[in-house]
Amino acid sequence: MTIVVFSGELDKALAAFIIATTGASMGMDVTMFFTFWGLNILKKNEAKMGGKGFKQKMFSLLNKGGTKRLKLSHFHMFGLGTWMMKLVMKDSHYPSIDEFITMAKEMGVKMIPCSTTCGMFGLTDVSFRSGVESIAGAAYFLGEARQSKVTLFI
Amino acid sequence: MTIVVFSGELDKALAAFIIATTGASMGMDVTMFFTFWGLNILKKNEAKMGGKGFKQKMFSLLNKGGTKRLKLSHFHMFGLGTWMMKLVMKDSHYPSIDEFITMAKEMGVKMIPCSTTCGMFGLTDVSFRSGVESIAGAAYFLGEARQSKVTLFI
Amino acid sequence: MTIVVFSGELDKALAAFIIATTGASMGMDVTMFFTFWGLNILKKNEAKMGGKGFKQKMFSLLNKGGTKRLKLSHFHMFGLGTWMMKLVMKDSHYPSIDEFITMAKEMGVKMIPCSTTCGMFGLTDVSFRSGVESIAGAAYFLGEARQSKVTLFI
Repeated sequence: MTIVVFSGELDKALAAFIIATTGASMGMDVTMFFTFWGLNILKKNEAKMGGKGFKQKMFSLLNKGGTKRLKLSHFHMFGLGTWMMKLVMKDSHYPSIDEFITMAKEMGVKMIPCSTTCGMFGLTDVSFRSGVESIAGAAYFLGEARQSKVTLFI
Repeated sequence: MTIVVFSGELDKALAAFIIATTGASMGMDVTMFFTFWGLNILKKNEAKMGGKGFKQKMFSLLNKGGTKRLKLSHFHMFGLGTWMMKLVMKDSHYPSIDEFITMAKEMGVKMIPCSTTCGMFGLTDVSFRSGVESIAGAAYFLGEARQSKVTLFI
Repeated sequence: MTIVVFSGELDKALAAFIIATTGASMGMDVTMFFTFWGLNILKKNEAKMGGKGFKQKMFSLLNKGGTKRLKLSHFHMFGLGTWMMKLVMKDSHYPSIDEFITMAKEMGVKMIPCSTTCGMFGLTDVSFRSGVESIAGAAYFLGEARQSKVTLFI
């Protein structure tokens, strides 16, 4: 299975990792390819302003990323909805997104940042949390997808 | 064909049901797997506050669902855009989303709510309109997707 | 490969064309099927009010389309974010969305508007830029998707 994670919202990230870890538990080889806003999920929470030149630096300030900054795509409501969602998940004993990332890594899911958008946003391998694979291009993604039974764009 | 319906917006719901019913009319076996906001499409319009405990009850109030409450992802404009879209569809004699759900059911499309998000949001089989299959998990979805020629995440 | 382009945002359009042109460069047959807001990507920039009757005309005014009007799905910020994104792309010598459309055409990627949504929005073949194929229906899309190794919904 190959999953393109384009979106950087908490709910879409959860959906991606629920599917990825379920697939891995069923014995599937799973590759997640993170691009555009999806890269925010893998960024270090303590990330600082990055990129080269004024424009990339400004963009990195606007687009800090890290799992602590992920919002819901609906009902964010200035933080209230996202906070409630996290409470509801905790009460139901669901793993947090950080726990899902750790689980995915332990189950052999490959998490790969997209080189094209990394170049655009001024990101390098050091921008990401440990456990993330090396940056790779769209051709690598398509090579995996062509051999996959299931490919999703999230 | 297997379609994950993650989004709960009118336009994405229409796209999902247009593709599902077209597939069924071409003789394909079609499974739709509803998760997160997509569950709102299948909820009863007269649904009441549900869930256990204060947090799930609050969340269910914010996230009532039902086909009458679906909005466009663009141009909702406090209801004006969504209302115009429905008028344009009616003028062109397109089926409404309720008619699409009925058609899909009659054509043998399986509509399945995701157990993980149902658990998170405090939903059970009685939360959904008639014609909906029993709740099932992500492993069930992946079992169907692995055998599908086409899998979409909407 | 078959790509449904449902979204009409600059970032999702870029992702779709990066994947499509990469696939074509790897020797894959690529079909892009544009529906709902995705049709805006293919509309002429100088498009005028279209459609039949008052409601379709109003809708076409709200939903003008054309590559110059595409916005980011995040950080649009009244135009500032979208403008910065375009600057960042230019600085990094990435092709613009117009250049991607031309490249895709030259590489043999088929770009097809969806007949159902064209009918709904009052669009015809003359609404679209040159290089776009004739309008076709969801059955055509599914016929292509069934034979594809990779199918994405963007």
